[in-house]
Amino acid sequence: MSEAGADVILSLDELDSLAREVLLRHGASPAHADAIARVIVQGQRDECHSHGIYRLIGCVRSIRSGKVDPRAEPALRDIAPGLLAVDANHGFSLLAFETGLPRLADKARSQGIAAMAINRCFHFSALWPEVEAIAALGLVGLAMNPSHSWVAPEGGKRPVFGTNPIAFAWPRPGSNPFVFDFATSAIARGDIELHAREGKPIPEHWAFDSDGMPTTDARAALDGAMRTFGGHKGSALAAMVELLAGALIGDLISMESQAFDAGAGASPYHGELVIAIDPRRFLGDDYRAGQARAEKLFEAVTGQGARLPSQRRFEARSRSERNGVRIPAQLHRDVMALRA
Amino acid sequence: MSEAGADVILSLDELDSLAREVLLRHGASPAHADAIARVIVQGQRDECHSHGIYRLIGCVRSIRSGKVDPRAEPALRDIAPGLLAVDANHGFSLLAFETGLPRLADKARSQGIAAMAINRCFHFSALWPEVEAIAALGLVGLAMNPSHSWVAPEGGKRPVFGTNPIAFAWPRPGSNPFVFDFATSAIARGDIELHAREGKPIPEHWAFDSDGMPTTDARAALDGAMRTFGGHKGSALAAMVELLAGALIGDLISMESQAFDAGAGASPYHGELVIAIDPRRFLGDDYRAGQARAEKLFEAVTGQGARLPSQRRFEARSRSERNGVRIPAQLHRDVMALRA
Repeated sequence: MSEAGADVILSLDELDSLAREVLLRHGASPAHADAIARVIVQGQRDECHSHGIYRLIGCVRSIRSGKVDPRAEPALRDIAPGLLAVDANHGFSLLAFETGLPRLADKARSQGIAAMAINRCFHFSALWPEVEAIAALGLVGLAMNPSHSWVAPEGGKRPVFGTNPIAFAWPRPGSNPFVFDFATSAIARGDIELHAREGKPIPEHWAFDSDGMPTTDARAALDGAMRTFGGHKGSALAAMVELLAGALIGDLISMESQAFDAGAGASPYHGELVIAIDPRRFLGDDYRAGQARAEKLFEAVTGQGARLPSQRRFEARSRSERNGVRIPAQLHRDVMALRA
Repeated sequence: MSEAGADVILSLDELDSLAREVLLRHGASPAHADAIARVIVQGQRDECHSHGIYRLIGCVRSIRSGKVDPRAEPALRDIAPGLLAVDANHGFSLLAFETGLPRLADKARSQGIAAMAINRCFHFSALWPEVEAIAALGLVGLAMNPSHSWVAPEGGKRPVFGTNPIAFAWPRPGSNPFVFDFATSAIARGDIELHAREGKPIPEHWAFDSDGMPTTDARAALDGAMRTFGGHKGSALAAMVELLAGALIGDLISMESQAFDAGAGASPYHGELVIAIDPRRFLGDDYRAGQARAEKLFEAVTGQGARLPSQRRFEARSRSERNGVRIPAQLHRDVMALRA
């Protein structure tokens, strides 16, 4: 640990130890503390600040609310040759994902394609660490989940959908994978919260107020309804996430997650759908040719100066692995206080 | 057949006969003529005019170009318990889809989730008839395909991606399914062509000219690059379609399809990925509860006056089934001339 101006600099190991200490202090089992700390370090390392150490505070709040079981043991259930489900048993989602991943990968390799439901989990994390973990096994990954009902369908004014992220990863041997992970809402809810905290106006296309009028007032937006990205197309995708990662897997849709929370302010409680496909099974002897074709696509994008999704994140990763992560001193103090 | 002002009115059966006659006249095998006529009737019936009888003209042009084999016999290959591929053998995609659908459905029911590649096909049709056919079997359907490289990645100015549609259907017992089918480009290419034909300007966010500048000139846009919908998110989805329905299945990406055409103006030539999931396998005894949860979601959308995707199309379908379809007299004459 060192200091630089108003920031504290921690190595990735120091950050991991701090996160685990806080989680254990608040009653997390060692397995949950490991799984959560790992993802929080990844977020901070990639400079996704809203998914880094900042999330520890919300995590502790969720545990304190009494809704989350920080020692829950995930239970894996085989449903069909291509399907499995992991019941998170009211715990955080991450240990459930880790518990199911090896079986999901086995199924993808033997069946060609497989799907895993994670059920009854509290969810606060980005999806890219999960699809990246799938890509690290040489598989194509797709993941999605509902959240709380904060987002209006296109053509409506009242919230129905969650921010409903969709994440995808394509393995690139010898390189970082092609990865995206985005909310189907116009903007992340955290961005509106940040504007509200700083008293800054928001663009008019992000949200409606509670009267259903477009608003530039971030607080009014939080009490009203966010909008989807990309008009009716983003709205259609948001609905798909509710169906696939809610109705299909026997878990809550965002409206139900919201109702379940009943104002406690815990992480959204719902399920998640993860799909894995084995390109080696699809392509057989043509596997290398398929990989080369993908690289040709990426070159056509980067060759004209456009970025691949996650490119900034990978640059940050490489910086953080060399130099450690910078954490604002106040945030560091807030987290240190959670050890007490 | 009857006339109404400048339109000709045909029953769905009359339209089907006309389409089949034209296709047979131009050398299509009866199986291809059936499959293509069925989808063209569906397009016209649902008032998707650019995917209705108008497409016959392009279909005949593709056959005349000599690139498409209108009598090709699709060959089905089992790849893995959850995977199959149908080689269209240089024919149109639709018969290949029909050939593979029963096996895809069997696999989805036995494995829970299954994927079908359609390879080496000429493609001119919308994807909603296919995902609707999957939903009609009680399964969840997802389909996507590349096209020709007409669309720039976000942050770039030169074309890389196709218009890359994504379609999804969720079965609703006793009702039309929840269905969407949209291009990941800002707008359909046909819409820009229509503006060019009519000499009308296009909105500035649809496309760049060949110098990479935003343009309102539809012809300049056709020579330049279209843009994706929804900024970097739509661009990420367009890339995903290239990867899943190109590189993953051993088939051409849009840049390669464009090169293969070599200016002949035939339909794009590439592959398609279709995924089917059996909600009964996922949900077991909770199947009805899952269906009810989906209906609750749909009610929350329609209950506030917003539309579900495809709702207009289903209204048109019901009109056409009662009253037949209206076809502009000139288009009707052009198609009648193709019988000669």
